[in-house]
Amino acid sequence: MSVSEKYYPAEPTAPVVKTTTIPGPESAKGIKSLGEVFDSRPVYFIADYEKSLGNYIADVDGNVYLDVYAQIASIALGYNNPALIEAAKSPEMIRALVERPAIGNFPGKDLEGIIKNVLKGAPKGQNNVWNGLSGADANELAFKAAFMYYQSKQRGYDTAFSAQENETVMKNQSPGSPDLAVLSFKRAFHGRLFASGSVTASKPVHKLDFPAFKWPKAEYPSYKYPLAENAEYNAAEDARCLKIVEELITSWHIPVAALIIEPVQSEGGDNHGSAAFFQGLRDITLKHNVVYIIDEVQTGLGATGKLWAHEHFNITPSPDLVTFSKKFQSAGYWFHDPKFVPNQSYRQFNTWCGDPAHMIIAGALVKEIQENDLVAKAAEVGDYLYGKLAELAVKYPQHIQKLRGQGKATFIAWDLESADKRNALLYKMKQNGVNVGGCADVSVRLRPTLTFEKKHADIFVSILDKVLSDF
Amino acid sequence: MSVSEKYYPAEPTAPVVKTTTIPGPESAKGIKSLGEVFDSRPVYFIADYEKSLGNYIADVDGNVYLDVYAQIASIALGYNNPALIEAAKSPEMIRALVERPAIGNFPGKDLEGIIKNVLKGAPKGQNNVWNGLSGADANELAFKAAFMYYQSKQRGYDTAFSAQENETVMKNQSPGSPDLAVLSFKRAFHGRLFASGSVTASKPVHKLDFPAFKWPKAEYPSYKYPLAENAEYNAAEDARCLKIVEELITSWHIPVAALIIEPVQSEGGDNHGSAAFFQGLRDITLKHNVVYIIDEVQTGLGATGKLWAHEHFNITPSPDLVTFSKKFQSAGYWFHDPKFVPNQSYRQFNTWCGDPAHMIIAGALVKEIQENDLVAKAAEVGDYLYGKLAELAVKYPQHIQKLRGQGKATFIAWDLESADKRNALLYKMKQNGVNVGGCADVSVRLRPTLTFEKKHADIFVSILDKVLSDF
Repeated sequence: MSVSEKYYPAEPTAPVVKTTTIPGPESAKGIKSLGEVFDSRPVYFIADYEKSLGNYIADVDGNVYLDVYAQIASIALGYNNPALIEAAKSPEMIRALVERPAIGNFPGKDLEGIIKNVLKGAPKGQNNVWNGLSGADANELAFKAAFMYYQSKQRGYDTAFSAQENETVMKNQSPGSPDLAVLSFKRAFHGRLFASGSVTASKPVHKLDFPAFKWPKAEYPSYKYPLAENAEYNAAEDARCLKIVEELITSWHIPVAALIIEPVQSEGGDNHGSAAFFQGLRDITLKHNVVYIIDEVQTGLGATGKLWAHEHFNITPSPDLVTFSKKFQSAGYWFHDPKFVPNQSYRQFNTWCGDPAHMIIAGALVKEIQENDLVAKAAEVGDYLYGKLAELAVKYPQHIQKLRGQGKATFIAWDLESADKRNALLYKMKQNGVNVGGCADVSVRLRPTLTFEKKHADIFVSILDKVLSDF
Repeated sequence: MSVSEKYYPAEPTAPVVKTTTIPGPESAKGIKSLGEVFDSRPVYFIADYEKSLGNYIADVDGNVYLDVYAQIASIALGYNNPALIEAAKSPEMIRALVERPAIGNFPGKDLEGIIKNVLKGAPKGQNNVWNGLSGADANELAFKAAFMYYQSKQRGYDTAFSAQENETVMKNQSPGSPDLAVLSFKRAFHGRLFASGSVTASKPVHKLDFPAFKWPKAEYPSYKYPLAENAEYNAAEDARCLKIVEELITSWHIPVAALIIEPVQSEGGDNHGSAAFFQGLRDITLKHNVVYIIDEVQTGLGATGKLWAHEHFNITPSPDLVTFSKKFQSAGYWFHDPKFVPNQSYRQFNTWCGDPAHMIIAGALVKEIQENDLVAKAAEVGDYLYGKLAELAVKYPQHIQKLRGQGKATFIAWDLESADKRNALLYKMKQNGVNVGGCADVSVRLRPTLTFEKKHADIFVSILDKVLSDF
């Protein structure tokens, strides 16, 4: 029995399409009504989560879609997973919701166990976690940890703050509020608050009208595909981009304290970087005393065939901070150097210090993934799916360009010939019962769950073939 | 039958103290053990939430404290509230946790009802809400709304972005990333991320080593007490502070797009501002086209005897944005001008757009508060408690100075003669079975729940009297 059969014995065996337009009439009515209390302009359809199961999401018109987007790449195991339902009904969950504790001051006696379950999901080389609330929050908390660490190296970890630091910080002035930068990459997405927004550079709409820190943007490699046929070009591209990184670090007008990067730039177009590139960044960051932060908000929790995508790269020594959210349900950063815990308490602190309710779900997710070997299974189904898509790419070379994600499980993407065609494809796939997402302007990204199996891949490929044949 | 009797028929009738030191031996063991996976240095004790009830929090040593701090001012109704337990067990809660939706793209059919229940808690003059995850997040989301609104007034609400804006924003440069400021106040606390941290100025420990936006800090009034005897001085203080605000707005080196202020500066020492001061800020912000943001993260949800503290001031017209979190359990900002919804979708957006699980709890809280008339009851018990404390202030003039919060329900604070004495009082209160918090350096702040009644006030006052008599 496959895992999807075990979890979801009643999972649909094919999509059901009942309306010719998406959203259908009931969804359209719901979107209009919801619009009175919420910005419903970006809503695709009104979901019916009672009727959604496993890899299928239902809407209020009775349409049932095979879901290879999984919210915004944020559902790990599928809808109505029985293990998560059990976790949601547990007495510790009720307490986490009703007695939402300020865990930094008044942790409950179950907190230690909750965190230990979360920690079972840590990347190789990391053994500690700090908890936050979202991907943007996780990245900004990591920046705080990075800045404190960077300054403590200059000052001495146990050295007290100077009177001047204590005084200037209250005026947002240096040296108490030092002018330090985080280096990121063009096309990156790390969130939409003000520091996370300052390192994001995928689309203007995410950032327009907001003040930003004047932080540098390096270039993320743009490879030629297929990778195997373009090894020399791509190695030169890595070298070119690494050189830019080092030049920015040594020449920027303020010190670069940290570098943040995605193992695959997701929102920015599913741009992949090589193991050599990521090791090169480790070497440069060590040489120049820059904190190395890997943002695994979208790539984490098994989606690429390793529990954490950067494990593909065997980066040595391990990156300093690894951030997570989305599919993990809880958010935060992993670390291993105890000096990322600040020298004084209350420096990395806030009222809630994370959210035990979602940490309980995260712990249950890690347990299910490990006990059912879901990362290896995702790798296997990903290879299968990639092979099928590579065949379709031969058949439809205009509509499936730059197929990428080989060897990265189901974390697969490709480009169409134009933004209009890409958008038309996303819509026509919905009309044929497949919920699929895009990224950047011309890319389609696949982000199915970890219970997406060959039978689901076959349905997806067959519908894609049908849609493209009419394109 | 009082509300606390209705909710908590088995609520303890007095604190139980079993250990001579706090934390007791079991808590100390738990703190040490927790410290292996979490920064447990700020932990007061390990709570036992199964055994906590109503206004009493239990720890793992069997101590049971009357809780007038309520986590960090973040529990509205008391522990193990039956109405919240029911909400936590509801099918819609299970779905919100297990199918955590990206509600901007794939809202469930229950979302509209969930938001409408939240909206029943809106302040007078506000009729719309945008949802976030924490107080810091709420404030930064409000800043985003404010910056977009401010720029749209310059540009025209429906005017498209220029090519130059679209290009410069990707480099964090003006005009796409404009240099705009948020004005805040000395001693303010608005959170600990980078923009929220830039408007926070209560203690260096919240901010040291983090880059900050160069934004101005005005002065929050420092009144003389009792207020009634110092009306002339305090009116002059309002005028002095308003003048500084206007001078900063007109002279700061970059435009001031927004102003953020707490109705009572809580973390910064329970500093109160008058209705005239808050109306003065409305007049100045209107005159200079500055967005007026009231931060009700700590003061909101009935704690001051109005549902929202700024309702004491009858500000006309209503403030533009009002932020909330903490006791509300869910976070976000209220608004009434539809132009605070940006002209394009995806400008105020993120994966989750809030957290339906905590929004469900928030809706249940609002319902309980309104059906049981808990705001009026808090006002009544607050008057009673203030009267008793005013008597103690005569008896212990050194230890109860500048008693404040009259007419603001139980949102009461006072100063001790020194930080050492204040810290000693907080500790001795715990040793006598009362969990109470401080703020700034020398202040004690009371933040009991809305089910804190005269019988609880009597116990609190009696223990405080005993502790102070030995002081």
